[in-house]
Amino acid sequence: MYEGALQDLIDELGQLPGVGPKSAQRMALHLLEAEPEDVERLTTAINAVRNQVKYCSVCGNLTEDDECSICRDPRRDPSIICVVQEPKDIQAIENSRVFRGRYHVLGGAIDPIHGIGPDQLRIRQLLGRLSDGVVQEIIIATNPNIEGEATASYLARTLSTIGVTTTRLAMGLPVGGDLEYADSITLGRAMEGRRNMS
Amino acid sequence: MYEGALQDLIDELGQLPGVGPKSAQRMALHLLEAEPEDVERLTTAINAVRNQVKYCSVCGNLTEDDECSICRDPRRDPSIICVVQEPKDIQAIENSRVFRGRYHVLGGAIDPIHGIGPDQLRIRQLLGRLSDGVVQEIIIATNPNIEGEATASYLARTLSTIGVTTTRLAMGLPVGGDLEYADSITLGRAMEGRRNMS
Repeated sequence: MYEGALQDLIDELGQLPGVGPKSAQRMALHLLEAEPEDVERLTTAINAVRNQVKYCSVCGNLTEDDECSICRDPRRDPSIICVVQEPKDIQAIENSRVFRGRYHVLGGAIDPIHGIGPDQLRIRQLLGRLSDGVVQEIIIATNPNIEGEATASYLARTLSTIGVTTTRLAMGLPVGGDLEYADSITLGRAMEGRRNMS
Repeated sequence: MYEGALQDLIDELGQLPGVGPKSAQRMALHLLEAEPEDVERLTTAINAVRNQVKYCSVCGNLTEDDECSICRDPRRDPSIICVVQEPKDIQAIENSRVFRGRYHVLGGAIDPIHGIGPDQLRIRQLLGRLSDGVVQEIIIATNPNIEGEATASYLARTLSTIGVTTTRLAMGLPVGGDLEYADSITLGRAMEGRRNMS
């Protein structure tokens, strides 16, 4: 629609996740007319992320140091590790403020169709963290879908030989949701996982 | 939520129009893990837009040359000029494929609250384009809101002394819309602008 450099920028912005042609156009026109220092800050921030952010050598979380802020924090309980697929899952759990242990990022989930088996995940590193006997419980917080469930089952089997308690996040009705709109699989899980109220 | 450079990038992306915190986070994580050449192409495209795109010396549209592709196109009718507020309005009209004349970008609309009067708009340049008598009609396509209407009235008054036909885009019901959901001002305009079907 536009010419040359402007259309190139719209196309590049359109490659970003969640950015459609219309938003890409708005963003490009904004960048064209923005103050030079604002544009400079954005491009600098992109390069800084690429150069400075790496993975925590212990848990695989995103960090600018060798270890992430959670692994370095002495107030975090070292006896519980919550296993997640991606660094962004750590943010989601941290936002809920209910977990005070440490994390371990697998870097994905078992997905044979896309060629991802246990060896492609950071499972060996997880087992390494259990060798000193400090960890008492592993909470498996992989996604509640086929790949996440397969990964959870694999981990539970592997960990059962080590003598560490393995738990899985509860599945059931989302809080604030409406029973009528719950899908039947979720409803089935909620029924299976029902708890005694007496 | 995140640390250092990553949060900086999320904040910068969040400054872009239509980008909320959640999309900024997705975009930042994407940029962190994208291929180096993809990121390079994006930052290069941002700088190219800033360096190469300028305003057409005739109509004020965006271009990389002295004149934009529409002003340079000999097939476009030089006797009709469509006056718009912003270059993006040209794209909207071009997409409808109903106009084959030329354009003139005002660079905004009269808006006394924000200190924008006729002198801040490219009205003098528009009058300059009428001096050789080629232009027979001016279509005023400013936005159908208070500022756009004020600008249209001002232009119509100014142009009435020159003897060029001045028209305004029709206002009325949007095609495909539902009468029930039309606001009363639009419905009022549709009634005023009703056309004879016989």
